[in-house]
Amino acid sequence: MPRAHVDPDRLRRDLESLLGARRVSMREGDLDTYARDMWPRLLLARRDGRPPDHLPFAVVWPEHPRELVALVKLARALRVPIIPYGGGSGVCGGVVPVHGGITVDLKRMTAIRAVSRDELVVDVEAGVNGERFERELRRRGYTFGNFPSSIYCSTVGGWLATRAAGQLSTKYGKVEDRVAGLTVVTGRGELVETDGPSRAMHGPDWTQLLLGSEGTLGIIASARLRLAPAPQLEVYRGFEVDSVAQGCEAIRRVLQRGLRPAVVRLYDEFDTFINSLGKRAPTGDAAAHGAPRGATPGYGAPHDDGLAPLPAPGEGALPVLPRPDPAASDGGGDDDGVIGKLLALARGKKRGLRQEAIGLALGNARLLNRVADRVARRGCRMVIGLEGSRIRTEVEAALVFAELAHAGARDTGEVAGRAWLAHRYAVSYRMSPTFRDGAFVDTMEVASTWERLQDLYHSVREAIGRHAVVMAHFSHAYPDGCSIYFTFAAHGDDLAEARRLYDAIWRDGLEAATRVGGTISHHHGVGLLKAPYMTGEHREAMSVLHALKRSLDPDDIMNPGKLGLGAPRAADAAAKGGRA
Amino acid sequence: MPRAHVDPDRLRRDLESLLGARRVSMREGDLDTYARDMWPRLLLARRDGRPPDHLPFAVVWPEHPRELVALVKLARALRVPIIPYGGGSGVCGGVVPVHGGITVDLKRMTAIRAVSRDELVVDVEAGVNGERFERELRRRGYTFGNFPSSIYCSTVGGWLATRAAGQLSTKYGKVEDRVAGLTVVTGRGELVETDGPSRAMHGPDWTQLLLGSEGTLGIIASARLRLAPAPQLEVYRGFEVDSVAQGCEAIRRVLQRGLRPAVVRLYDEFDTFINSLGKRAPTGDAAAHGAPRGATPGYGAPHDDGLAPLPAPGEGALPVLPRPDPAASDGGGDDDGVIGKLLALARGKKRGLRQEAIGLALGNARLLNRVADRVARRGCRMVIGLEGSRIRTEVEAALVFAELAHAGARDTGEVAGRAWLAHRYAVSYRMSPTFRDGAFVDTMEVASTWERLQDLYHSVREAIGRHAVVMAHFSHAYPDGCSIYFTFAAHGDDLAEARRLYDAIWRDGLEAATRVGGTISHHHGVGLLKAPYMTGEHREAMSVLHALKRSLDPDDIMNPGKLGLGAPRAADAAAKGGRA
Repeated sequence: MPRAHVDPDRLRRDLESLLGARRVSMREGDLDTYARDMWPRLLLARRDGRPPDHLPFAVVWPEHPRELVALVKLARALRVPIIPYGGGSGVCGGVVPVHGGITVDLKRMTAIRAVSRDELVVDVEAGVNGERFERELRRRGYTFGNFPSSIYCSTVGGWLATRAAGQLSTKYGKVEDRVAGLTVVTGRGELVETDGPSRAMHGPDWTQLLLGSEGTLGIIASARLRLAPAPQLEVYRGFEVDSVAQGCEAIRRVLQRGLRPAVVRLYDEFDTFINSLGKRAPTGDAAAHGAPRGATPGYGAPHDDGLAPLPAPGEGALPVLPRPDPAASDGGGDDDGVIGKLLALARGKKRGLRQEAIGLALGNARLLNRVADRVARRGCRMVIGLEGSRIRTEVEAALVFAELAHAGARDTGEVAGRAWLAHRYAVSYRMSPTFRDGAFVDTMEVASTWERLQDLYHSVREAIGRHAVVMAHFSHAYPDGCSIYFTFAAHGDDLAEARRLYDAIWRDGLEAATRVGGTISHHHGVGLLKAPYMTGEHREAMSVLHALKRSLDPDDIMNPGKLGLGAPRAADAAAKGGRA
Repeated sequence: MPRAHVDPDRLRRDLESLLGARRVSMREGDLDTYARDMWPRLLLARRDGRPPDHLPFAVVWPEHPRELVALVKLARALRVPIIPYGGGSGVCGGVVPVHGGITVDLKRMTAIRAVSRDELVVDVEAGVNGERFERELRRRGYTFGNFPSSIYCSTVGGWLATRAAGQLSTKYGKVEDRVAGLTVVTGRGELVETDGPSRAMHGPDWTQLLLGSEGTLGIIASARLRLAPAPQLEVYRGFEVDSVAQGCEAIRRVLQRGLRPAVVRLYDEFDTFINSLGKRAPTGDAAAHGAPRGATPGYGAPHDDGLAPLPAPGEGALPVLPRPDPAASDGGGDDDGVIGKLLALARGKKRGLRQEAIGLALGNARLLNRVADRVARRGCRMVIGLEGSRIRTEVEAALVFAELAHAGARDTGEVAGRAWLAHRYAVSYRMSPTFRDGAFVDTMEVASTWERLQDLYHSVREAIGRHAVVMAHFSHAYPDGCSIYFTFAAHGDDLAEARRLYDAIWRDGLEAATRVGGTISHHHGVGLLKAPYMTGEHREAMSVLHALKRSLDPDDIMNPGKLGLGAPRAADAAAKGGRA
């Protein structure tokens, strides 16, 4: 970059000579579809009927690593960007073709090779759908252990390119912890196999360099992934604690004793409260999604074909609080009275009234967040799950529950735990209805050590809360720290206002996270959204990343602008322009 | 490289102006000492009274990361190599100054910062001695879990630079699995902090790039390392199986069920046999080292100051078989008769006779290895150890032992397990006496998946066995594979003959390992010894490593020639010259 002029006819001819006409598209509809992922900032414009700011020149569907090599070599010759594309479920704009280019959809590369009994690893191509991958493994008696809420619409390659994490990461780790080797086509057009499982690691490990590189260094073609035996037993229970701080301390103690539950979730007071409303609202009832209470959905015995239920269209919209009393619109006043009215409305059955209230309610974020503070005294709910071989899981569950009780957590029973399990993928499908209602919603996942975790929670919550209604849960807990997942909702009267608000939330939230030593991302990746904050987090180490980028992608064709890498001026301009 | 001419007086002046005269040495004795590590090929020359082939220009002892930055900047300006130096306990020539240069001894950088109760991580400087590090952690109630047999004479920085593994790696992982972040001075002279523990990983991970880089990309100044609580309980037992294949299958089943013993060791038939001889020989008795049988040596309760006992000087020389009957010196003949005589001599008490026999015995490797095949019917011993919190360890031990019994392993009791624990560091000190006797001994640690492990064992054993007496044990077991640790001994009449033999063993052994898909190293690193075999293992991926090297060390000053990187012609020449 700067790019040579690209002649569309020549590009089409060159691509078709590599892949054939059926696997190359320059149709408007395809270019429009591949211009975005699920980044809410793009969805805002989409809702407004605006065309994408950036379109790819072409979309291609390769089927073999050697075709990836040929594509990269062609792109180098033409000086045209390459944008690898998996499921398109990312939420940070990682696939936006900010300089145009060839979008390489990997979804035709879906081979899952045999799992040898002896190895506990599987070779899998990057384009395979996450849910299909896990289902295939279960049929054979194994699990990969990665269950992101996007599992139905994300790919294995996308997980690897973004260092994804699933809901059971406390037991199974993030995806980067389970990779034995990668096959990658670098920006030089070289096909490289990083250490395979037959090769214990020695020398520098470039597997970990390529994981999380979001297509900026190369295209991940396939991977050897470490598996675990499918669990024989799943144990889930709900708990309740008085406060976020007490809950975090309880979780820390469990993990630092060497115990490894699979799922650890702690909801803050507001999230707990909102969830309790949803339980009673006619459309929000979890049971409406069709799963029998107490049953284990999803992956059961090897021959169980049942999938975790998806919510019906329109179901499960983010429960929001209704319109506040205008007399108490801001600042002082009789909060208790207002809260009483809000609660009454929220528990009512008039769906129309509830929906209508969204705009006004979200427009009054400070008041709603103060409601959250008031309901804080109601405590926080937790969900703890364990899985694995029968005897060990029984023993570990007993030890975990005893440690939690010792830390003051109150057992609320199995049903409370199983209810989460039954609807664990539903949250992803709650975003669109909210957008239809004129508001927007997004999530911010940050992380830190246990020591700084309360600081991180309060700082980021306060920063987001200036602009939006915000709630949070703690999940993805590790012996040394934990991630916090903030969900926020706000409302802008028009696109410009919504974007201004959206950008302010992210700016203030991530600056708050960096200030207290938190990370700007735990598992959603960086993409365009967080690119401007990479230097704040990595400081001097960014120069290492820039040097590596120059080595592996000397022509700067690999997904430029993502991770704050490549075509710096253009990418900065895009990011700043986006924010202006 | 090629280097500018270096004026020694100017170099001394420049170094002294950075560090002061007391922390710079160009004395002959110091240069000689820092010319080598414990690579047996160098020890052969040393025994012969030969001076080192390569000397550093100077040795320096920095005390602060900013001094490391200044040193690298000076070295860049002068175009003089930098060789980072830890304990000097490496066995692959990783610190040999093949182009001269400044040897940077890190042993004055030894701070161990406080372990926060909340974090389970510790900041530690690279030069701290391994045993002191672990002892400090135990005093505070923690363990790092890395127990290489070199623990008394290796440093934390050396562990990180070579991706070391300890005897308990099946539970705690290799060192690279326990690193939250590094502080590194790159070959550009930049001080870089890779992701710290407050930062969940995202984007490419350069921590894993720098681990195992053996000083070729930068100097590791300090690290944040993940800790575990000190164990409350240690359980050790011995087992016996009929064959290596049966033992491997038993271990694989244990690990793939999700069980994690800390120590898993399986000795092949010859190693088992040799060990049984040692048990009965007057000087080889384990109890002679002073540890009470059945007691837990080393790190016990937080206030236990006891260290694992070191062998007394001259004790514990590698037990070898005595002189064979010349009439049956090679090929056919009455093996049973010969073996009977060998056994009788081996069990005898005449130390002089045993020592004198070494040369002749080792000179007849094929015969001795055939003896090994004969004694194979005696079966293989195993040592299994578990440690951790009390209840979980008890439960896990019961499950592990049940699984082993199910796989046909016979329990030989607690004493058999504890005997290994009592002398776990002794083997490192058995090398020197063997060298004194005119023979040489070395170890080759390779690894593969379970599927290829038997192939790897037989291929490498056969390849080494053409030249040397060879025995092996399996340790460092993981769900996807295991390492094999070959110990071999041979004898050359003079230095040239010994080196020829030594090089042939390594060439044939590593070529055999590569042929069957094994790795050329598990935890000893690469250094000079295995540099010529890096391309055979990594193939196309070596180009990535070369590109990274150019990025982070543009002047090629960082430990050139190691890992097959830097100054390629000169390094190749050195390696080939060494081998010629």
